[in-house]
Amino acid sequence: AETKKIAILPGDGIGPEVIAEAVKVLRKTEELFGYKFETESALFGGIAIDETGTPLPQDALDKCKRADAVLLGAVGGPKWDSNPKETRPETGLLGIRKALGLFSNIRPAVIFDCLKEASTLKPEVLEGTDLIVVRELTGGIYFGEKFRRDSDNGQEAVDTCVYNVKEIERIVHQGFQIAQKRRKKLCSVDKANVLETSRLWRETVIRIAPEYPDVELEHVLVDNCAMQLLRRPSSFDVIVTENMFGDILSDEAAMLTGSIGMLSSASLGEGSFGLYEPVHGSAPDIAGQGIANPIATILSVALMFKLSFNYQEAGDVIENAVKDVLDAGHRTGDIAVDKSKAIGTTAMGDLIIAAM
Amino acid sequence: AETKKIAILPGDGIGPEVIAEAVKVLRKTEELFGYKFETESALFGGIAIDETGTPLPQDALDKCKRADAVLLGAVGGPKWDSNPKETRPETGLLGIRKALGLFSNIRPAVIFDCLKEASTLKPEVLEGTDLIVVRELTGGIYFGEKFRRDSDNGQEAVDTCVYNVKEIERIVHQGFQIAQKRRKKLCSVDKANVLETSRLWRETVIRIAPEYPDVELEHVLVDNCAMQLLRRPSSFDVIVTENMFGDILSDEAAMLTGSIGMLSSASLGEGSFGLYEPVHGSAPDIAGQGIANPIATILSVALMFKLSFNYQEAGDVIENAVKDVLDAGHRTGDIAVDKSKAIGTTAMGDLIIAAM
Ligand SMILES: CC(C)[C@H](C(=O)O)[C@@H](O)C(=O)O
Ligand SMILES: CC(C)[C@H](C(=O)O)[C@@H](O)C(=O)O
Repeated sequence: AETKKIAILPGDGIGPEVIAEAVKVLRKTEELFGYKFETESALFGGIAIDETGTPLPQDALDKCKRADAVLLGAVGGPKWDSNPKETRPETGLLGIRKALGLFSNIRPAVIFDCLKEASTLKPEVLEGTDLIVVRELTGGIYFGEKFRRDSDNGQEAVDTCVYNVKEIERIVHQGFQIAQKRRKKLCSVDKANVLETSRLWRETVIRIAPEYPDVELEHVLVDNCAMQLLRRPSSFDVIVTENMFGDILSDEAAMLTGSIGMLSSASLGEGSFGLYEPVHGSAPDIAGQGIANPIATILSVALMFKLSFNYQEAGDVIENAVKDVLDAGHRTGDIAVDKSKAIGTTAMGDLIIAAM
Repeated sequence: AETKKIAILPGDGIGPEVIAEAVKVLRKTEELFGYKFETESALFGGIAIDETGTPLPQDALDKCKRADAVLLGAVGGPKWDSNPKETRPETGLLGIRKALGLFSNIRPAVIFDCLKEASTLKPEVLEGTDLIVVRELTGGIYFGEKFRRDSDNGQEAVDTCVYNVKEIERIVHQGFQIAQKRRKKLCSVDKANVLETSRLWRETVIRIAPEYPDVELEHVLVDNCAMQLLRRPSSFDVIVTENMFGDILSDEAAMLTGSIGMLSSASLGEGSFGLYEPVHGSAPDIAGQGIANPIATILSVALMFKLSFNYQEAGDVIENAVKDVLDAGHRTGDIAVDKSKAIGTTAMGDLIIAAM
């Protein structure tokens, strides 16, 4: 098989620990399927600030740009939280999304059978929940002009939320196309009763919809969606929305599964390039102890295989191996009922590789 | 006692039906406590569009302005949903908030014992949940400049989110002061890692905090708050946040109580003037059938008594009457387990009055 280049950004906190296990899984697939991966690691996030003065060094960007896909651990931590904007890990995250044109964030929220009990929702409400939030990632209020100015009422801060038709079209097409491959239901979320960007969003969705006659479309206001996710999570298939609403709703959706330590995400642009990362953060409180759960990052590799490389079978093999190891009762501390039987990061990685 | 003027805006859908019961409760308190209320009704919302061409007629505004408080039913419905902005019920709602200077929206999310089971959250998670969302209501992206323009990528829409220090200060002071009268915990929600308005928000909160040394303060990012509300709802006391985030989080908080049909809200300005309304909407699907639950609107009267008139005792009497009627097993259809035993809107109102 053709060699695939993967840029690896371990980042901060538990990032390097979980990435190490994901890389082991990657290597195992070379053995099993004859794939060839060329990996290049780079500094990114807080560690890059410490060592180079900026969260997104040119070196990291170059390595990502010449790669076929990027695997990211996690960034951030209290150490950098009160830094000025330019030297904060999040600024690196926003920068890399923009620089790589990753306009689409795909966040599946699924239930792991063995973690059903971990949710704060009643099991009968959760039953059958399997949804994807498709979030616009390079536009809206995240990237619009921001500034301060004086006013009669003290300093005044301004953020600008901007969307053009093309930006809306490309993410909405993605939403429809993902829905077509699933249960064929698309929920478009906006605040069209208040925001001009939302009105343009809704008009655009309505204009595009006839191209996808097989997909059932509903428009839901963002406040109502925050409620419906709680009330009827299993009725959602694909949710498509703008950047800020997607940030909030995808976290709500992830949390209600009770499986947040297990969820992975993809950030995609045009073509097959993508950045893959676990949904969880850098968990500085448990970093360096060898107890972090590597499953979300390992599943990010499976997502990379499926979405960027079209390695469906290998992706399935990884996902099934994770399932088997969990079914056999193995747990890291975060998901263990009996904490005294919890295994560490490396042991979990080894078990998954052995099960592949 | 001095006569209090109350403007009544029944609105659309079930609005007039639930308002009728609330007015009966108001009259009952005249009898019991010797209060005097002068009420004036006005057209507002969809019905005002139909009869006068605008959702907020000058007559309604005048009546509100000369009143000591406003009681609102609910507005909106599919009939007006595709109207242009100027003739939509929501535009009336935004207009009245701005015109009356109602910068603070208070939304208590409490659990009614008899409705615990109605929540999709596990009872042990819900146990003890009793929080208030204090939402800024006349600023932010709701009221900033909005427009369309051409761009190289098709039409472009722009919304502007603006906050000045004074706007932030007054709502944050309210948050602290409400917390002081409760469990003394304030959670300030922002997106300071991305938005300039949020950075000004957080700076302002930090600057004000020393004036309230008895209140424990935490800053939570909005995406994280959407998760924490699900994970540990009972740990929140008062949440203070800006307009758009407050819209989403207050609905999420209301829904997780399972008691959304029972929750009331207050919108306050400077001084004791306030607008009171149920959290639920106009429910056009059940309008005119005499089956709507009037409890949230009746409890809005209790909230009005406490927050605008300082009629604490009468407020308690109403709240206790509601509790007694529920404890006795009476239910409207929306909250009945055995739907065949459900009672109607008027019957529920009568029972509450009898229990006062
Ligand atoms: C860290 C932050 C800037 C980021 C975002 O808001 O996009 C994060 O919350 C996410 O969802 O990836
Ligand atoms: C109807 C709408 C404009 C309004 C808002 O977003 O403020 C509603 O959702 C609310 O919360 O009162």
